[in-house]
Amino acid sequence: MKLDEIRTVLVRKKLDAYILTRNNMFTGQDILPEENRLQTLTGFTGSAGRLLIRPLGNSSILFVDGRYELQAAAEVPPDITVNCTAKGPSFTQWLQDNLPPASKIGFNPWCLTIRETEHLQTALPACRFVPFSQIEDNRLLSPETFQVFSHDIEFCGISAEEKLSQILEDMTARRLDALLITAADSVSWLTNLRSRCLPDTPVLRAYVLISAGGNISLFADNLDFSQISPQGLNVFPLSALEKELKSCRKKRLGTDTSSAPYQIKLIAEKHKIGLINTPDACARLKCVKNPVELQGMRNAHLRDGAAVTSFLCWLEQHWPETDELGVVAKLHEYRSRQQNFFSESFATIAGFGSNGAIVHYQPRPQTNRKLSPGSLLLLDSGAQYLDGTTDTTRTIALGTPSPEQIDDYTRVLQAHIALSTAIFPKKTTGRALDALAREPLWRHGLDYAHGTGHGVGCFLNVHEGPVGISTTYSDTPLQAGMITSIEPGYYKAGHYGIRIENLVEVIPTGRKGFLAFSPLTLIPYDRRLINKSLLSPEELDWLNHYHRHVKQSLSPLLPPDERQWLEQACTPL
Amino acid sequence: MKLDEIRTVLVRKKLDAYILTRNNMFTGQDILPEENRLQTLTGFTGSAGRLLIRPLGNSSILFVDGRYELQAAAEVPPDITVNCTAKGPSFTQWLQDNLPPASKIGFNPWCLTIRETEHLQTALPACRFVPFSQIEDNRLLSPETFQVFSHDIEFCGISAEEKLSQILEDMTARRLDALLITAADSVSWLTNLRSRCLPDTPVLRAYVLISAGGNISLFADNLDFSQISPQGLNVFPLSALEKELKSCRKKRLGTDTSSAPYQIKLIAEKHKIGLINTPDACARLKCVKNPVELQGMRNAHLRDGAAVTSFLCWLEQHWPETDELGVVAKLHEYRSRQQNFFSESFATIAGFGSNGAIVHYQPRPQTNRKLSPGSLLLLDSGAQYLDGTTDTTRTIALGTPSPEQIDDYTRVLQAHIALSTAIFPKKTTGRALDALAREPLWRHGLDYAHGTGHGVGCFLNVHEGPVGISTTYSDTPLQAGMITSIEPGYYKAGHYGIRIENLVEVIPTGRKGFLAFSPLTLIPYDRRLINKSLLSPEELDWLNHYHRHVKQSLSPLLPPDERQWLEQACTPL
Repeated sequence: MKLDEIRTVLVRKKLDAYILTRNNMFTGQDILPEENRLQTLTGFTGSAGRLLIRPLGNSSILFVDGRYELQAAAEVPPDITVNCTAKGPSFTQWLQDNLPPASKIGFNPWCLTIRETEHLQTALPACRFVPFSQIEDNRLLSPETFQVFSHDIEFCGISAEEKLSQILEDMTARRLDALLITAADSVSWLTNLRSRCLPDTPVLRAYVLISAGGNISLFADNLDFSQISPQGLNVFPLSALEKELKSCRKKRLGTDTSSAPYQIKLIAEKHKIGLINTPDACARLKCVKNPVELQGMRNAHLRDGAAVTSFLCWLEQHWPETDELGVVAKLHEYRSRQQNFFSESFATIAGFGSNGAIVHYQPRPQTNRKLSPGSLLLLDSGAQYLDGTTDTTRTIALGTPSPEQIDDYTRVLQAHIALSTAIFPKKTTGRALDALAREPLWRHGLDYAHGTGHGVGCFLNVHEGPVGISTTYSDTPLQAGMITSIEPGYYKAGHYGIRIENLVEVIPTGRKGFLAFSPLTLIPYDRRLINKSLLSPEELDWLNHYHRHVKQSLSPLLPPDERQWLEQACTPL
Repeated sequence: MKLDEIRTVLVRKKLDAYILTRNNMFTGQDILPEENRLQTLTGFTGSAGRLLIRPLGNSSILFVDGRYELQAAAEVPPDITVNCTAKGPSFTQWLQDNLPPASKIGFNPWCLTIRETEHLQTALPACRFVPFSQIEDNRLLSPETFQVFSHDIEFCGISAEEKLSQILEDMTARRLDALLITAADSVSWLTNLRSRCLPDTPVLRAYVLISAGGNISLFADNLDFSQISPQGLNVFPLSALEKELKSCRKKRLGTDTSSAPYQIKLIAEKHKIGLINTPDACARLKCVKNPVELQGMRNAHLRDGAAVTSFLCWLEQHWPETDELGVVAKLHEYRSRQQNFFSESFATIAGFGSNGAIVHYQPRPQTNRKLSPGSLLLLDSGAQYLDGTTDTTRTIALGTPSPEQIDDYTRVLQAHIALSTAIFPKKTTGRALDALAREPLWRHGLDYAHGTGHGVGCFLNVHEGPVGISTTYSDTPLQAGMITSIEPGYYKAGHYGIRIENLVEVIPTGRKGFLAFSPLTLIPYDRRLINKSLLSPEELDWLNHYHRHVKQSLSPLLPPDERQWLEQACTPL
């Protein structure tokens, strides 16, 4: 169905609006290109967004976050208005301000979570939210079949049995008769199973229903379980979910309302199931990495650092002959040679010049730019290795950088260092720390319209909740063993973008009750972009110490010419 | 009723617990000493806390925040357990972890807000919360009668008529038939009326019901309106509230569920009133001070600075002869001589030595300490003037301070300066800024278990929401014209306490879209407690500039001997 056809349906069904999300029933999870209804309808290629479709006669509104402000405006047709929630009102606020009172709003109950829907219902008590999925294609998943494989104990560290017993303990404490887990990465973590059903995220797209007795039913389509031992799993198609849930009639069924689709609530109401909001214990357990995972992450970052260093050495000689897509291909080539390489962890962002100012730009043939002297290349990339997941951003000068580029880069580096060197008490949330990275930029009138850091899974989602560092959604107290990115930036629209990102591990300090960050990422910063005179002695020390550490860690992994390049790149400032 | 009698009633009524709050029906507002049921039952004298009373055979639990950890432990009898929510679980978490499943929990529906009650109901879905007020004395207010007086337009800047028309506009936009305001300071702000019904806060303890047509009904006991012109107010006793609310049957009644008692919801349900959660527009409007209020605040701080400076000059000569209570009395003497003085804005905190480490200590005859050399005096005090409200903390060395005291004070001063000099974009919340003050302390393993700043009313509450700077409750974006305190501290239990507090005004900066703080408080810091070698050149500049500004502002207001003392106190470091 095209946008105008949908708008006609809205008129016929007397709906004042329809909420179209980008996700399918695996809320919070990425999707396959052919499942991207939002892109099909609007042309918007970003990884997050939501369209409010309105009947003919009213414009439709695309809501995007600060990362996609420029990109969305460039991609959508003129009859769609873009609302950037970093500058304009939030989605909810917009509905409150603009919809006629007592509006009827359609939505697909598989694609909005229970929490989001209830939040909207509370914020707009006079409106009616009408579950209405006919508008969208019912096919939630690609028809292709994907092989399921085990994530070996040498990488994941804890057996599925042990994980299940922790979850059952939690269920007993909450007196649950059953627990429904709808988050794909939680299901993958719990079962120690993975698949290639998404290009950059090795999750299993499946729901799991656990009974208090420890029986596990797994609901999934298009997955082939023939290569793994059954491990006591009962596998059902997704269409069997409602039937299986009926066994919970008049019983207590736990589910996390922040990830479970509203459809689960509708099913519970229909069958008189007592639905209990139960924060996802898998999410809470998997965000603190176990010793095997931590060691795997460190090992993966060594190999990843070597691959990126090899690439940077190549780039220094070959940049005049290549373009953004060439960068993406070459970087893939270096990474894919590394042991345990599985895939990229997200589509590489290689933004040259003004493309770098588009925060989450991904080069495509139509936008692909040749590299040329005098501007910056923003390179944000990462990989899934069987033993760990990486995500790093380096900004690289091509030719001779301008004094303004150097000063802007140095400010961002100071922001990156300020948070990297923070010491903070236990119980501190990522949200509380966000300003430590921004303050060095604010001081000079600079800022960035995206979060400062996100949690990272182990051979799972490269963006993993609930850990994060941002002004909004990061209220999880930090603990030793958690992993987050630190990635402040600055974007000069029409000119260049700067972002500097390391993954870091939360570690205990010598001082009781206080924590700190330790970098996992091992890749040199571009020395040509650093104005030493702006750095404090402490900042300079940190930088030289980091470069020494990078050199010592990576040198043994590199051939002589690249080792020589690394030594030069890590020379003390 | 004594605690043991209440515990017997719980057994008889088959209640598993009873929630006793410190407040009365004016939630969030201070109370009179004779209304302090929490203190009567437990001996706890702090300004915030909550008691979970349990039947005989189980200990009762007093919940306090980080400010009262030491004090509560010292004050309550051994059969009451103190839970400090800064270190232990939150109130809700404690109930979840410790109460038997499906508990029956009594509470006074006049004393818990709708939001708090609903939050508990959601967090403990298997429990039953039973409105049960018989346990507590029904007398919510003191029997004394207080005169109501007008807050003149020369101080408040905007007429009650103009304020009402803003509220009516808001009501129209929300299609409300009526609005119930239950927050005493909002009622006082809206009507430009005040009283002396609380010792340090000149509010009117009243509810107001506004009809869409602009009729105002005011509900209050023990207030005498004979000295003011009626201004179209209909005054009813509080007991008439339910009868008057009946007129809203089948209509839309707005109220702010974060301040309205749960009893309002019970009344609404009983009479089929459509209760709409409506954020208090008075709170939103009054936290951005108008130009008259801002000028009044600046003027009040000049006089207050002069009064405190006179006191500090006196203290330097007389400290060996006095004690904490003597300090309180003398400071009152200096302040009360100032023009427009009305009262203290809260009971003065004068904590010498180890008493200073009790964050919100107030000297009483049993605890009163004589001042002696070698330790610190923490002095947190303020006043209500007709044109503005002040609140400031200075920490003063008596005799020769130790190197450790000096270094600790200097670290707290650096925290105070770090936040005072922050520049931040519009839309930044106080919560986001909190860590800027803590980070210089965290770096040395120090911290403080209280918020960093609170909003301040104009001749109203010295703690005024929703503005604040803390890790928890301060999600209001800062705007020019708002006022907050900046008050980091460090407390060495058993030895001394350090806190440094200024009130500051949020101001625009030369850079579009960015805000900063400008100090209102004009009182020198104790130079003897500053280790200059720890300060950065920028910190030293700020300090010397502040002292120069204090000297220039206050000198004209002081007699020659005190002026000379001030000059010495403000000498550049």
